[in-house]
Amino acid sequence: MGFIDELAAAVGPALRTDRAELDRVRTDRSGWTTPEEPAAVVRARSAEDVQAVLRLATAHRVPVVPRGAGTGLAGGAVGSAGSVVLDLSGMDRVLAVDEENETAVVQPGVVTDALAAALAPHRLWWPPDPASRAISTVGGNIATNAGGLLCAKYGVTRESVLGLQVVLADGTLVRLGRGTVKGVTGFDLTALLIGSEGTLGVVVEATLKLRRTSTDPVVTIGATFPDVHAAAAAAAAITASGLRCAALEIMDAATCAAIDALVAAGEGPGGDVPALAGRGAFLLLQTDGGAAPEEAAAAMALVEAAGGEGSVAKDPETAAALVALRRSAHPAYAKLGEVLIEDVCVPRSALPAMFDAVADIAERHGLPIPVLAHAGDGNLHPNIVIPPSVPHAPGEIPEVVWAAGEELFRAAIALGGTLTGEHGVGVLKRRWIEEELGEDVMALSRRVKAAFDPLGILNPGKVW
Amino acid sequence: MGFIDELAAAVGPALRTDRAELDRVRTDRSGWTTPEEPAAVVRARSAEDVQAVLRLATAHRVPVVPRGAGTGLAGGAVGSAGSVVLDLSGMDRVLAVDEENETAVVQPGVVTDALAAALAPHRLWWPPDPASRAISTVGGNIATNAGGLLCAKYGVTRESVLGLQVVLADGTLVRLGRGTVKGVTGFDLTALLIGSEGTLGVVVEATLKLRRTSTDPVVTIGATFPDVHAAAAAAAAITASGLRCAALEIMDAATCAAIDALVAAGEGPGGDVPALAGRGAFLLLQTDGGAAPEEAAAAMALVEAAGGEGSVAKDPETAAALVALRRSAHPAYAKLGEVLIEDVCVPRSALPAMFDAVADIAERHGLPIPVLAHAGDGNLHPNIVIPPSVPHAPGEIPEVVWAAGEELFRAAIALGGTLTGEHGVGVLKRRWIEEELGEDVMALSRRVKAAFDPLGILNPGKVW
Repeated sequence: MGFIDELAAAVGPALRTDRAELDRVRTDRSGWTTPEEPAAVVRARSAEDVQAVLRLATAHRVPVVPRGAGTGLAGGAVGSAGSVVLDLSGMDRVLAVDEENETAVVQPGVVTDALAAALAPHRLWWPPDPASRAISTVGGNIATNAGGLLCAKYGVTRESVLGLQVVLADGTLVRLGRGTVKGVTGFDLTALLIGSEGTLGVVVEATLKLRRTSTDPVVTIGATFPDVHAAAAAAAAITASGLRCAALEIMDAATCAAIDALVAAGEGPGGDVPALAGRGAFLLLQTDGGAAPEEAAAAMALVEAAGGEGSVAKDPETAAALVALRRSAHPAYAKLGEVLIEDVCVPRSALPAMFDAVADIAERHGLPIPVLAHAGDGNLHPNIVIPPSVPHAPGEIPEVVWAAGEELFRAAIALGGTLTGEHGVGVLKRRWIEEELGEDVMALSRRVKAAFDPLGILNPGKVW
Repeated sequence: MGFIDELAAAVGPALRTDRAELDRVRTDRSGWTTPEEPAAVVRARSAEDVQAVLRLATAHRVPVVPRGAGTGLAGGAVGSAGSVVLDLSGMDRVLAVDEENETAVVQPGVVTDALAAALAPHRLWWPPDPASRAISTVGGNIATNAGGLLCAKYGVTRESVLGLQVVLADGTLVRLGRGTVKGVTGFDLTALLIGSEGTLGVVVEATLKLRRTSTDPVVTIGATFPDVHAAAAAAAAITASGLRCAALEIMDAATCAAIDALVAAGEGPGGDVPALAGRGAFLLLQTDGGAAPEEAAAAMALVEAAGGEGSVAKDPETAAALVALRRSAHPAYAKLGEVLIEDVCVPRSALPAMFDAVADIAERHGLPIPVLAHAGDGNLHPNIVIPPSVPHAPGEIPEVVWAAGEELFRAAIALGGTLTGEHGVGVLKRRWIEEELGEDVMALSRRVKAAFDPLGILNPGKVW
């Protein structure tokens, strides 16, 4: 029997080889589609399915691509040539919630918002908060060490995962980490797996560290600034004052203009929000915890000192409207053209310089590159818009976008930053990884990869 | 030339081979002394010294034992047979403090309290807070992923290190991680190195993530309980209420009795503190941040509801006296005999069961085992006292202590916990590591170890 026949015998109807299914897994939310042809999809129902796939893949030396909801932005989960795509989105159960220990045990395919809904009745929440949380999975959050709006205060995914069950390349199921909040027995292989983008093993279960839901109100501020430097200065002053904001988000002038156009077209969010027309930047800030009102007042004073105009939201409706304004950025960009969402991170002090670099790159390449930034941790999302005037085949990224992207990455690295703050390297940033890591760390990383996956069958062609 | 001659030529006066120096590095703060004989000590002055030692060690296949202040509790940094002990305590400079980005770049030998003193004028602090902070080094904190009193709220060492410069086994110097607070380019090798106890590489520089010093007062509570179950119930209720205490420490009845004896001998701390004679447990609790007074009041109500007697400290002197009472535990134990400080961690809900298990083991073996617990994260330190009635040679651990220790570890693992919450495996817990990790994770870990150290020269005989 050939590989596919053996696979069919092992996993039965979980195996899919139809055209529509194979095409479905050739792309993700980056907009890019691989020209390569995966061989099959297995819609895994259990750890046993995953083990069966990996045992056969090892025996036949066939590449395996782990995949969740396919909402990645770097091509990390697209099916590569001749691969079996292991679709884990059906393994979506919350297996246990432990109120006393503030932990949950979940399968990788559970959608982040679905987990939140399952935890809410227990007065618990899981901190990772990627913008994709309504559609992305916990397994995908783990694969990319996802961040989001809250991580300057509450940490990235790594800080909220205690243990993992992982199927190794040869089909062995191992338990990494533990259910306790501390523990140093052996290497921290749990942390090593987090952010490894499916290249070291396949997560089939995770023990998550939760937090108790606060009964204190969240306080929200929205403010506009004459330019993005003033907004960055306000954010820096707030951080320097010792305030730990739950959210501290900056939108630049191009984003303000795009949202203003959306509003003018009658498609924007309503409510009592500042007008963004002609504004240089918008800052959304939230404080939480027992001292949230005092912290918001202190932050508001620093916003005004930096030249911002705005106010502390006076009621929950206004707060929701301000958050909706921030969330309308992507619908606003979509009106301008196709968008490649980029993701670099720099030391916080380099935020103004990185904003300048993006504006310069945008101008030189004639591409709109509006920016959203998690100012609390120096993580910027320059969103490269491909205007209708730049022709390209569906699923392809035009050369001018690659060129602008390359300059963005190099600018971030030159400022002491990184290629990717929270989206991962995948396929799309692979060609720059060595510029950041250097030859020796690349070689070391490949040896670590080989320790897990000596045949190189796990997500080959991604990251490394 | 032989190895030692080449070493002398490479590092000059940094090389030491005298008897006193070799004996100095055969022990640590566990009280255990290795019977093995190291060959030499190099008091490294620079990364270049470290590279020179590792290049020669690779060429001659000589074991290298990285060591900081030698304050470990598991024998992880004692010189093994024929090894070169690489003493990094002289590389103790704070190289840079970046106020704006809240980071510091330090050498590994800086003592944790000395770092705190260097950061204070910048209104910054580094969260790891091991009890040994006055004598242990940042490099040692990194090697063991140290925790301490504050980590339930502020995280363990891993959460406060952004990047490392590491010399690999062959002498190559690599930079892992970065200076930004987020970043997912490549594997998280920084996290992998943290807690690896000198078995993967030698840290020669670290970029630390700091926090802004708060101007809000810390509020302290001290309370006694009729038994340790009541104290554990209070701690559980406080955590369940959503309060995140800066410190939440429980001392059991045996510890209360030991401190009471210290006080009766006129050697205890003074001040306005509860009498511990005949009490079943003492709880020390601290809240911080803008809502600290309200949080302390809420916690105090839960303490009383659980049967505790005590109060919120009315002034800084009383608060300091309560903290001093907790800190007097180790001097109190020392009056009873030699002490082996143990370190297990269980799910928080298992704290009462683990307290019971320790009491049972203590009784059956006829050994006092007073317990200190970081209740916020389920981390217990059972302190095995070796009374003068149990004879043993200096530096040796009597069989009865091993036997009691083994039962402690197995009890913790059976409760879903771990061998070591924050001290590491070193030599002393090596014989139980496989019981916790299992055969497959041991094999995987050894492959990871080989990816870093193919010749097995880095701290051999430790952990694995």
